[in-house]
Amino acid sequence: MFVLVNLKAYDCDAVAIANAAADAAADTDARIAVAPQAADLAAVAETGVETFAQHVSPNGHGSHTGSTLAESVARYADGTLLNHSERRLRLADIGASVTAARDAGLETVVCANNPAQIAAVTAFGPDAVAVEPPELIGTGVSVASADPDIVTNAVAAACDVDPTVDVFCGAGISTGEDVLAARELDAGGVLLASGVAKADDPRAALEGLVADL
Amino acid sequence: MFVLVNLKAYDCDAVAIANAAADAAADTDARIAVAPQAADLAAVAETGVETFAQHVSPNGHGSHTGSTLAESVARYADGTLLNHSERRLRLADIGASVTAARDAGLETVVCANNPAQIAAVTAFGPDAVAVEPPELIGTGVSVASADPDIVTNAVAAACDVDPTVDVFCGAGISTGEDVLAARELDAGGVLLASGVAKADDPRAALEGLVADL
Amino acid sequence: MFVLVNLKAYDCDAVAIANAAADAAADTDARIAVAPQAADLAAVAETGVETFAQHVSPNGHGSHTGSTLAESVARYADGTLLNHSERRLRLADIGASVTAARDAGLETVVCANNPAQIAAVTAFGPDAVAVEPPELIGTGVSVASADPDIVTNAVAAACDVDPTVDVFCGAGISTGEDVLAARELDAGGVLLASGVAKADDPRAALEGLVADL
Amino acid sequence: MFVLVNLKAYDCDAVAIANAAADAAADTDARIAVAPQAADLAAVAETGVETFAQHVSPNGHGSHTGSTLAESVARYADGTLLNHSERRLRLADIGASVTAARDAGLETVVCANNPAQIAAVTAFGPDAVAVEPPELIGTGVSVASADPDIVTNAVAAACDVDPTVDVFCGAGISTGEDVLAARELDAGGVLLASGVAKADDPRAALEGLVADL
Repeated sequence: MFVLVNLKAYDCDAVAIANAAADAAADTDARIAVAPQAADLAAVAETGVETFAQHVSPNGHGSHTGSTLAESVARYADGTLLNHSERRLRLADIGASVTAARDAGLETVVCANNPAQIAAVTAFGPDAVAVEPPELIGTGVSVASADPDIVTNAVAAACDVDPTVDVFCGAGISTGEDVLAARELDAGGVLLASGVAKADDPRAALEGLVADL
Repeated sequence: MFVLVNLKAYDCDAVAIANAAADAAADTDARIAVAPQAADLAAVAETGVETFAQHVSPNGHGSHTGSTLAESVARYADGTLLNHSERRLRLADIGASVTAARDAGLETVVCANNPAQIAAVTAFGPDAVAVEPPELIGTGVSVASADPDIVTNAVAAACDVDPTVDVFCGAGISTGEDVLAARELDAGGVLLASGVAKADDPRAALEGLVADL
Repeated sequence: MFVLVNLKAYDCDAVAIANAAADAAADTDARIAVAPQAADLAAVAETGVETFAQHVSPNGHGSHTGSTLAESVARYADGTLLNHSERRLRLADIGASVTAARDAGLETVVCANNPAQIAAVTAFGPDAVAVEPPELIGTGVSVASADPDIVTNAVAAACDVDPTVDVFCGAGISTGEDVLAARELDAGGVLLASGVAKADDPRAALEGLVADL
Repeated sequence: MFVLVNLKAYDCDAVAIANAAADAAADTDARIAVAPQAADLAAVAETGVETFAQHVSPNGHGSHTGSTLAESVARYADGTLLNHSERRLRLADIGASVTAARDAGLETVVCANNPAQIAAVTAFGPDAVAVEPPELIGTGVSVASADPDIVTNAVAAACDVDPTVDVFCGAGISTGEDVLAARELDAGGVLLASGVAKADDPRAALEGLVADL
């Protein structure tokens, strides 16, 4: 199981959370990764935790001021999110970003809202896709209790297109029970954000998430 | 065979071309449609020619100033292009635009650059997808001579995802031979633009395109 | 005084509202214009009412599929809104769109959120700028009662840059009193939308707006 | 005089160039700053050179995955470029990004193409604006020889709006002579990119730029 903690642009201590995640990861078989702001990738990677970017641009080297070059990200990070609901990409750019990331040695997790979009992004051959039902993002409602079908349908849609692509549950995860429920729906991982980033005790929050795996 | 003439923002007489297309369509079994600027949809539709929009927005009714509402387009047009290489959409908006167009009674033709993107857009269930290899757009080079594999692979990619979705050849078409070549590659239609819109005699250009079908 | 009715993508009968506006305009010294969806420009213009587009693109003629060509709009419309809060443009595109619209013979009204933005867009020399405080858009709260300073400051900011550019009040207008208040704050016009477009009796709503001018 | 070296997404050794710039800056009265990719800000800042971001987002803290948070950038950088011609922003976002950057303690240099745009961005009160005539970007043609009027007019346009805002010359700079010419046109700084980033000997290139100041 893969637990990917997205720090967004939250007002949080990225390095402290990264240290907590590195500690929690040492005590479990689950993978735990932290995705900070691009400028904080170096500091987060230095803690030893598995580090993800929140986005990379479709371009390669060249005159692309203000882009997020995959190769530059890859000096610090192990992987990247793409097409998060807060950073939606044009279709053509998703394909190019997956390619740019892979060529730079980054693992790719591409987000999408629903099973049709999941099928679409799976066609680009990323390592994983993450389904984020917009109605669950940031609500604290568990995806498994609210709408397990969307995960089941996303898994089926991805499998139809390419059975080697993992499906993550990208919203509605805040407790260890949610993680277990996601696993039972055949999700290979979970994305979460405020549940860890805004927790009083991020380490305890992370340990709770992976305790029963 | 479907011949879709995209007038883009060309300096041309949309109504004259529409009349020529209506005449040419009367003499052939092929469908011929004209896609003018949104403001010209009413005038083009009045000629009796099959009329397409160049784009519709993903939104429905509401506070969307400057959008291209599918329902407003559908008062005049029969269908719409989507995600043309000059009007690339975010993945999530392609799905929503296909749905908005279909709900308004518009036929949908979604463009994409390569077989992976074709597979992706086919997942949204449009009526047709059109493959436009960027290296052929506006070059006058024939897709069939330059790179027939891209059409063959696009047809295969679309068929894999949904065999009911037609595949059009969206670039590299300027002559009747190109149209025949596209048909032999199992394309159900062709998109073209300057070959008709900038022709000295658009009617002759159109007749030449469909003469041997 | 200029009363500009933005129909957005509302579910309304654009032609009926245009006829009501044409009638109301005949009985007042105020100008009344209607801004429908691009596809409905021809039908609205045919009523004889002053007709505005909701947006035009910065490009001229050429390969710009899905753009809103100023010259095409100008076949039907008298002017255009630009940079509405629901259709924000990049700075460089505002300048190019003002130029494209003016070259096509369209009057230009450029929207902005606050006095600093008003100063910025005035620098492009449009015919008018419209200040739309985001906190008033669609609320029904009157700009004059809520925050008259923002109009006063916008007028001052525009005048500083170019005293020949008119300033409109772009939000918080729903009654004739609001229009009078805007005029007293030195606004040369008002933008409104749902107050007319969603009124049970659009003609009565329009007459009420201009009754005391 | 301020010499700002934009590394864009070039295939270059950002830390080596930063070290060269730190050395060159020690030997001159001119300020020299380096603007790397966001992920490389920490490594570049560690060299002691003045460090700029290539872009910051308009948002503050919150749910903004994939944004470039000014506060996160400010942990490493001293300032930021905004609205570079390769990263054009919407007008409303320029204002918000200037504010976000300033609140985080970052110096701001806002780019624009021509005198009208320079006037517009000056209205947001950044520390400096940089004029980049699109026809000079990346050409190696010197702005002073090609079109000195554009700099003179940009200086006048900015001064008209706010005389406290510095004007930089943002294109057409590759030699020490170009820097002198820019200074004589009343530019307070220069932006350059490939002239240093792709130089065989970046340190020699930098020394040449500031030798005669």
